[in-house]
Amino acid sequence: MQVHAYATEGATEALKPFEITRRDLQPNDVLIDITHCGVCHSDIHAARNEWGRSKYPFVPGHEIIGRVSETGPDVTQHKVGDLVGVGCMVDACLACPACHDGDEQYCEKGMVGTYGGIEPVIGGPTFGGYSRQIVVRQEFVLKVSEKLPPEKVAPLLCAGITSWSPLKHWNIGKGDKVGVIGLGGLGHMGIKFAVALGAEVVMITTSPEKGEDARRLGVSDVLVSKDRAQMKAHLGSFDFLLNTVPVKHDLNPYLGLLARNGTMVIVGAIEPLEEMHGGLLLANRRRIAGSGIGGLEETQDMLDFCAEHDITCDVEVIAMKDINEAYDRVVASDVKYRFVIDMATL
Amino acid sequence: MQVHAYATEGATEALKPFEITRRDLQPNDVLIDITHCGVCHSDIHAARNEWGRSKYPFVPGHEIIGRVSETGPDVTQHKVGDLVGVGCMVDACLACPACHDGDEQYCEKGMVGTYGGIEPVIGGPTFGGYSRQIVVRQEFVLKVSEKLPPEKVAPLLCAGITSWSPLKHWNIGKGDKVGVIGLGGLGHMGIKFAVALGAEVVMITTSPEKGEDARRLGVSDVLVSKDRAQMKAHLGSFDFLLNTVPVKHDLNPYLGLLARNGTMVIVGAIEPLEEMHGGLLLANRRRIAGSGIGGLEETQDMLDFCAEHDITCDVEVIAMKDINEAYDRVVASDVKYRFVIDMATL
Repeated sequence: MQVHAYATEGATEALKPFEITRRDLQPNDVLIDITHCGVCHSDIHAARNEWGRSKYPFVPGHEIIGRVSETGPDVTQHKVGDLVGVGCMVDACLACPACHDGDEQYCEKGMVGTYGGIEPVIGGPTFGGYSRQIVVRQEFVLKVSEKLPPEKVAPLLCAGITSWSPLKHWNIGKGDKVGVIGLGGLGHMGIKFAVALGAEVVMITTSPEKGEDARRLGVSDVLVSKDRAQMKAHLGSFDFLLNTVPVKHDLNPYLGLLARNGTMVIVGAIEPLEEMHGGLLLANRRRIAGSGIGGLEETQDMLDFCAEHDITCDVEVIAMKDINEAYDRVVASDVKYRFVIDMATL
Repeated sequence: MQVHAYATEGATEALKPFEITRRDLQPNDVLIDITHCGVCHSDIHAARNEWGRSKYPFVPGHEIIGRVSETGPDVTQHKVGDLVGVGCMVDACLACPACHDGDEQYCEKGMVGTYGGIEPVIGGPTFGGYSRQIVVRQEFVLKVSEKLPPEKVAPLLCAGITSWSPLKHWNIGKGDKVGVIGLGGLGHMGIKFAVALGAEVVMITTSPEKGEDARRLGVSDVLVSKDRAQMKAHLGSFDFLLNTVPVKHDLNPYLGLLARNGTMVIVGAIEPLEEMHGGLLLANRRRIAGSGIGGLEETQDMLDFCAEHDITCDVEVIAMKDINEAYDRVVASDVKYRFVIDMATL
């Protein structure tokens, strides 16, 4: 089927209207009329081929909210009219040990990305959510509560789950001292979640001016990482650090903040990091881990938790035509904290 | 009290006979006549001030075996004639949460190193085990079985516990695939322990010629890390990697070997490591941790396990006068796998 979307035809091109081919509805598929799509920094990296593996034409978008408009005959989990979401994955083998454990993002056969993946039916590239419609197999379609504003729910599908998954995997809750490093799309959700889970949460930032907003989000303290006296006062005191910094950086000052057996989880930087000091790991038996998005069941759990606790993203809604300007503002960190495209404007 | 020892008087000096002052026996102290002392690579780093914090005169040695020759009036755990051991620590606060949890090596007040620490009674530097005698508070004296040759037990006090502690902390056993990176003092004990704990153990080395010896120690396979095809065959398959490489190196090839939720523990390199790729951590939710020696209770558990399973170190016994030559051979990796000084030769 032909679908109207916004695409870029090369790494240096602006996004513009485009016709794409999506697969026809398969028996197990759901057709979704997209109402909103969040703008993730990954969209920009991929559209501009900054990771060196993009194919064109390219349609970004993996924070998708919409309504089911048609279902294949085998679909049992969703019905026409349902408010639903699609995140970073649209397929996986669902048979390997990783999928069996609800870790579809680590599928041993490889999960299929919502954009830039290989479409398993027609064999071409998958196209993302900057689009009127999307066709997705039912298991990868999440249920979204009608209680929350859908534009504020969209970024939960990537920024939300990416922050939520490590907090749950490392069992963060009451009694834990958690530091969230970086206040952007991921960081602001990390703060909201860690606070809601009962932890004592400290915002760790290079920008003291972000402190006020972090306090509004619920942190008990703001730690400016360039301030040696402040860093020294928190030395060896954190049980868990959620590191959302999206670029290469020095891990050593943060490592020193970890308590005995403490873990820093990296969710943003998927590139080489600066030289890490082995001695800082040995002291206090510290750990560094990585975590990528989250599985289907935990994504649904997060969406349900958000509906129950009235947690959403802070967003700025934009029209489709303003996407290129929005990209420049994301790169300049000029957004609190996520742009979301109103797809009625496409 | 004055004690005869071997010391170096400067970073570039050879070790030679020296008179040192140890504290007089305190009520809670044990006097040990040292029979054997292992030679750890750390001894060399410290004697030569390669970590930049050594004070002279300096007496190395923290793999100490000996017999109790005198006890203070409050000593209840040891008696004259007992075969005992002393490892890398001779004191800690024994009151903080870390000490309470049996992690005296991570004491929040700081543990006192067997050499180069601050002697809590006379206030001077602690002197290590290249010495006729040592005075140690009873809690830091380990019980050693008479069943095993003491010269082969000595290196368990550092090389042994440093390999044992992470294997136990990460609960390694039957069903786990464990890689031991590097075949030296720590690596050869890591293999023996992981095999004894029931794991499937693979030796990972840059030196194919070490394979034969590793198989003798019980590994099921030898993986030459410079061989791309071999590395590819083991990609994403290890539950646990014990990284004993003692110098700066590239972690990335090893990270790729880890399975989902797998952990690589660094026990050797206490210096900056080469740039690590964040994406390799995010994939498979991989972890890197550090681990330093081990606590008192787990050291005793390890010694008891060794006595029960007839596990000892592979050693070459030397006379005290040959220590400087032995240092050069350790630096050249020319020892299988630990030198131990017969202290009767002092």
